[in-house]
Order: sequence, then C-alpha cells, then structure tokens
Amino acid sequence: MDAISVIRTKRDRGELTPDQIDWVIDAYTRGEVAHEQMSSLAMAIFLNGMNRTEIARWTAAMIASGERMDFSSLPRPTADKHSTGGVGDKITLPLAPLVAACGAAVPQLSGRGLGHTGGTLDKLEAIPGWRATLSNEEMLNVLHDVGSVICAAGDGLAPADKKLYALRDVTGTVESIPLIASSIMSKKIAEGTGSLVLDVKVGSGAFMKDLDNARELASTMVELGTDHGVKTVALLTDMATPLGLTAGNALEVRESVEVLAGGGPQDVVELTLALAREMLDAAGLKDADPAKALADGSAMDHWRRMISAQGGDPDAALPVAREQHVVTASSSGILTTLDAYAVGLAAWRLGAGRARKEDPVQAGAGVELHAKPGDTVTAGQPLLTLHTDTPEKFPYALEALDGGVLVGPEDAAFATTPVVLERIG
Amino acid sequence: MDAISVIRTKRDRGELTPDQIDWVIDAYTRGEVAHEQMSSLAMAIFLNGMNRTEIARWTAAMIASGERMDFSSLPRPTADKHSTGGVGDKITLPLAPLVAACGAAVPQLSGRGLGHTGGTLDKLEAIPGWRATLSNEEMLNVLHDVGSVICAAGDGLAPADKKLYALRDVTGTVESIPLIASSIMSKKIAEGTGSLVLDVKVGSGAFMKDLDNARELASTMVELGTDHGVKTVALLTDMATPLGLTAGNALEVRESVEVLAGGGPQDVVELTLALAREMLDAAGLKDADPAKALADGSAMDHWRRMISAQGGDPDAALPVAREQHVVTASSSGILTTLDAYAVGLAAWRLGAGRARKEDPVQAGAGVELHAKPGDTVTAGQPLLTLHTDTPEKFPYALEALDGGVLVGPEDAAFATTPVVLERIG
Repeated sequence: MDAISVIRTKRDRGELTPDQIDWVIDAYTRGEVAHEQMSSLAMAIFLNGMNRTEIARWTAAMIASGERMDFSSLPRPTADKHSTGGVGDKITLPLAPLVAACGAAVPQLSGRGLGHTGGTLDKLEAIPGWRATLSNEEMLNVLHDVGSVICAAGDGLAPADKKLYALRDVTGTVESIPLIASSIMSKKIAEGTGSLVLDVKVGSGAFMKDLDNARELASTMVELGTDHGVKTVALLTDMATPLGLTAGNALEVRESVEVLAGGGPQDVVELTLALAREMLDAAGLKDADPAKALADGSAMDHWRRMISAQGGDPDAALPVAREQHVVTASSSGILTTLDAYAVGLAAWRLGAGRARKEDPVQAGAGVELHAKPGDTVTAGQPLLTLHTDTPEKFPYALEALDGGVLVGPEDAAFATTPVVLERIG
Repeated sequence: MDAISVIRTKRDRGELTPDQIDWVIDAYTRGEVAHEQMSSLAMAIFLNGMNRTEIARWTAAMIASGERMDFSSLPRPTADKHSTGGVGDKITLPLAPLVAACGAAVPQLSGRGLGHTGGTLDKLEAIPGWRATLSNEEMLNVLHDVGSVICAAGDGLAPADKKLYALRDVTGTVESIPLIASSIMSKKIAEGTGSLVLDVKVGSGAFMKDLDNARELASTMVELGTDHGVKTVALLTDMATPLGLTAGNALEVRESVEVLAGGGPQDVVELTLALAREMLDAAGLKDADPAKALADGSAMDHWRRMISAQGGDPDAALPVAREQHVVTASSSGILTTLDAYAVGLAAWRLGAGRARKEDPVQAGAGVELHAKPGDTVTAGQPLLTLHTDTPEKFPYALEALDGGVLVGPEDAAFATTPVVLERIG
C-alpha cells in the first residue's frame, strides 16, 4: 500500500477500497503519508467525489484514529446538536441548558470561529472567568451535576480529522460534501452521544448556498449517524439573513440570556425550540415541554449553573466595545435584504472573528441589527450599530456591508422565509 | 494574491490569470506557497486542465524563476534534442557527437532515470572517469572545443520546475500534458538552445500510451518552443517494444559505440539518423550528411573527444554485471511481442534504475535482447539475457517479463511498426 496508488485510484475516478481508506487515514495520522500527498488526495476527492460506501469507511477510519468517549454511565439519555455554521448562530447557548432542564444530558463539544462564521467557544469566552478547556473527567462531572456542558473537544477525539481539517483550510478543499460530512460525523460519533440533531444552514451566510447541496449534506450525515447507531435527524434552516439581532461574541451572549429569560428575537426562540424538541424526541423524552422550561426559569437556572461550573460568573457585566458606528436607512420603505454573509464579514472585520486560528478575537466587537427583512423603516432610522475596539476597521466593515443592506419602496414585494425549511431523518 | 484563491480558480474550472500564474510560481519557488498548496493546485490542474494561454504563461513563469543560458557567442548554430523517455532509448549518446560532427553545437542537458525508463547521465556514468556535473564555464568550453556536451542541468535553470517535478513525483500528478509540456519546455528554453527536436514516445514503455495523447503533448510543446523563438519540431516514435537490443547502462553505452562505429541495430541507426536530420535542418545546416559522418568515423571521433573532455576514458573496458540468466524460447515460431514496459521494469528490478532519486544504479545491470518482434525463433533459443550484481532479483525480473514476451505460430499474423510514426512542426 502506498500513497501514490491511493491518490491515482481517486484521481482516475475509481472507488477507494476499505483497505486503501483505512491505510491512508492511519498513515496520515502517523505522518507516514505527507501533507502534500493528503492534499492532492483531498483535491481528487473534492473533484471526483466519494460514494456512500467510501464516505462511511472514511468516517469510520477517522473515528478509529483516536479515542471514543462513553456516556453510558450517566443516568440520563444524551442528545447533542451540531450546526454547520452561520451568522448570528448563538443557538447552542440557550439550547444546551434548555434541553438539560427538560431531562436530557447535553455533551456539547464545540469549536472556535474561522472566517465569517462565529464560534461557540469564542462567544462564551466573553463571559468573565469562563473556561473552554476541561479534562474528560471535569466534563463528565459538569454533565452529571448540571446536565449540559459546552467545551472544547479534547485532542484525543478523531486526531485524523483535526489534521485533515487544518490542511483543507489552507488547500482550497473545504467545500466538499464527503469531506464535510465525514469531518463532522467522525467527531460527533467519537464523542459518544446517543442522539444527534444537525442544523444544516442554507444561504449566503452558510457553506451550502443552495438547498440541493444542503439536502445532500444532511442526508449523508443522517445516514452516517444512523449506521453508527446514533439516532440522527437534520433540520435545513435559513441562513440568507443573520439569526436574531446580533453577530459578535458578547453581543450574542446577551441575546442568548434574553431568550433564556423568556424574551429575545422571535426567530432565535423559534429555532431554539424546534431544535430542543428534536433533541428531546431523539433522546426518547417525548413528553418534555421546552417552551415551559423557557417560561418558568428552569432553563435560565441550568444556564447559570453551567456557566458557574466552568468558572464563569453569570452575573458579571459583559465586555462592551470601545467604539460604535451607527448605519442609518438612506430612504423610507421596506428592508428587503440584510445579507447574512455581508453581516458576518463585517462582524469578522470589526474583530469578532479571526483570520488565522492563532489570532485573538475581540469580545465586544460585532454587528447589532435594529431591523430585520420585511420591517418598515424610515429614512434616517438606525439599521445597524457596528461595535469594535479598533475603529480604523469601520471603513472595511462598511465596505463588507455594501450591497448587503437594501431598502425597497413601501409597496415592495417581500416574501418571508420560514426559519426551518425542511426536516430530514 | 493568495494560494487559496489561485487553487479555487482552477478547482472551479476557471482560467488562471497571468498574474495568478506568475505569483504562484514565484511564491512556490520562494517557499511562501507551501508544498501542500502546490500539490492541491497540481491535482486541480491534472483534473481540470490548462488551456494554451495558461500553459504558455506557466512555462514562462518557470523560466523566469531562474537563470537563462546564452550560446550566442558560439560560432555554430545550436540544436538540442529531448526524449520523453523510453526503454532502451540510448539515442542521445550517438546523436550528440554525430550532430556535432555535422557542424552544429549540441548543448545536451540531461537527466537521471526514475522508474522504468533509463537516464542518459546514468548510462554515461558507466564509463570509467566520466563526470556528469560541469560548471557553466566548463560546459561552454566543451561545447566550443568538441561541439557537443552531455551533462547535468545546473541548479540555476528553472528551479521552480525542479521543485514541482519532485513534488509531482510523490503526489500522483505526473501524467498531465500541461504539466509535462511546461516542465520539459521551461528547462529547454532556459537552456538557451536555438532549435529543438522533440522525440515523443508512444506505447507501453512511454508516459503517453496512445497516439492522441502523444500528439497533443507534442503539438503543445512545439507551440511553446515556437512562441519563445526556439525552432521546434517533434517526431512521434514507437515505444511498444524497446529500442535496439539493450536496456541498461553499460549495455546501452556498448550499443551506442557500435552505432558510432557504423554498425548497431537497425532501429537505433534509423532513429538516430532521423533525429540528426531534423536537428541539422532546424539549425539551418540542410546540406549536412549524417549517414556519411557515421560511415567515415567523424562521429566516432567526436564521441571520443566528448567523453575525454569530461574525464572519461573512451577505451576503458565497460563494467559487466556479476551474474547472467538466459531466458529461452519455450516454443518455435515468430516472436510477436516484446513489451517495452515489461523489459524496462525487468531492467529496473535488476538494478539498472532507481526507486528513489537518492538510490545508486548498477552500471552492468540490464536486459540484453537476442531477438526482436517479427523474428523467427526456435524452441530453446536464447531470447534475452538478464544481467545483475544482485542475483536475488532474478525472480522479480522474470515476474516483470511474464506475459511481455510472446512467441506465436510460424504463420502468425505480424505487422511491423515504423520507428517514426508522425512528424509535428
């Protein structure tokens, strides 16, 4: 077995054998297959694809490259959620304590933001004292005591995926359904959850820009999960416009706390409840009532305990950016477009995200929205507030927003898009 | 400009801009673009191709990565030959002194063998004392004094190609017409020859297995040379069976000397003369008579002077392998098949070639042929003699020959293939 013969097989549109896949993933993890060989193979996979049999084996080989966690000692059924990433997607923050309040255990291993989409860990780190990195034992303790935990995945889970993910990021091989599906699912299956709900984003602010690709990614992942004994369901959800009214780390924590307090933007509440119901169903807790847990304060109580258990102070004031810049409506009418990618890129340029994974993020930076598509606005009315500690970035953020914020006449045709587009599973 | 955007352009079937090509070749040479990024781009080029405009710019950028040589101070017109590589292809050895004897200057920068095809420098190094590595000044002196020189290309010529060639070798991206054509032509144009004859091999023992691909490679290279002011012509020549009666380093030197002495196998003489006439035509020496220069000893005289000028002893005994094994005909009839790839692989396994570029080669190892396709043979007659210093390799060499040497009945249909199949230019 050698790297070149594996590369040639896929380059020449052949099907990789189970032995080839097992060998190349293991040899790459050990460093026997070089980065330049794996990137050549990744580009061949990007362009020539993998069939379902190959994707299943590729995923299994990545799981086998590291340890598998086991939550069978917990007294509650486990349920996890994964989002493919969007702008203003803070749903994990209210969702994990909400589902825990309803009786499931939620082991939410999360990542950091890269590019225009935010990262859950970056958001929670806006809370003074909160720690993302826990040992496996600490993680199990928080899960046991609180019912939900949001933390960084340990180095032992799917190390082949960690290496390949970083490689794909610099070699133009990210947006491949076989590679995305196997990357997400290898981590989630190795994590050991009993059930999993996938939030597959569709639209300008997502990796998948159109419904067909999103549907293929979702069904590939649902099949992978099911084959590995994880009850898996996917919702395809809209990412043409940001979720809620904030994109940025501390800004999104504040909005999440509003949702946990029974308020918050309608779309965030709707998606949080839709995902909570799917997670509880998948975990076998069909009688749980997440709307009640939001209304009666029990979700908020779990949030406060979860943040405290990881060293955070749920009552501490959140960081605020040093400078603000308000963008106003240039005419009166209906806000017809508020593009997710434009807002995500603006937030990123303001300091909410990072260009390279070593970079720090600004806790207070981001974009606050004062209107959503479909809203009637009047000339001069504030539409967005930009927040940053580095005001020299305002012009770049405004450039990112150019063409992404459109006001039409009062009688402009405007069709609202539902938050949840489809369910697969 | 960044590597990922260049990769994405080609990945998504776009045309690379001149700026993108110039930047990526220069940045790769400097180490700013990483190996894993270039290999991902090479695979995207392999699968999505480059058009003639892109190939021309890619070649120009590789030339610009290093120095260009200049032979305008020589009193004779320069002519060079390049072969895409085959089994038993020793033509450079008699050809260079022959063309010099006819009045042209032949600056033959050559390479070493990799895989089943032999390398000109490996062959000449079988001659005791002969040195492949010359300074630019030494090279010019030999060219001036003798008229022909065969030596290793200096590190200063097309360093981008050197780096990319080594990378392609380990990443499954060798057999791509745009990448082969630009690699060959960047070196030949940087070398500074005034005219160039390409010997593009077709058949089992060549990179190009079929005539259509060989024709496309040839016309791409002819166009590149012409665009850079080098008078360029290509011959498509047969490589279904080995050239001549030897494959191996010292064995091929011996056969080359036979040709220079006015004898040698008919196909080697025919191809040597055909290429010599093209080179002399391209150099403007239309009245030269290479057949006469072979017959009257002037080519042999130039050979002896050329070998001596590089430290070699033209009268020294050539190395002989320690062990021989004779393969005989198992039945009487006509030798219908003597497969070039099978013979090349056998010679390689016997020690004539190298698996990695650091490996040494055996000067005496190789395969000697006692019959060629179309010859009548009788049962028990020797067909091949295998030569090696490592007799434990005989079984592997015989395995390589399995199915590649076929004897048919005496009335078997057999059509001879001409040595030169087509001319392009």
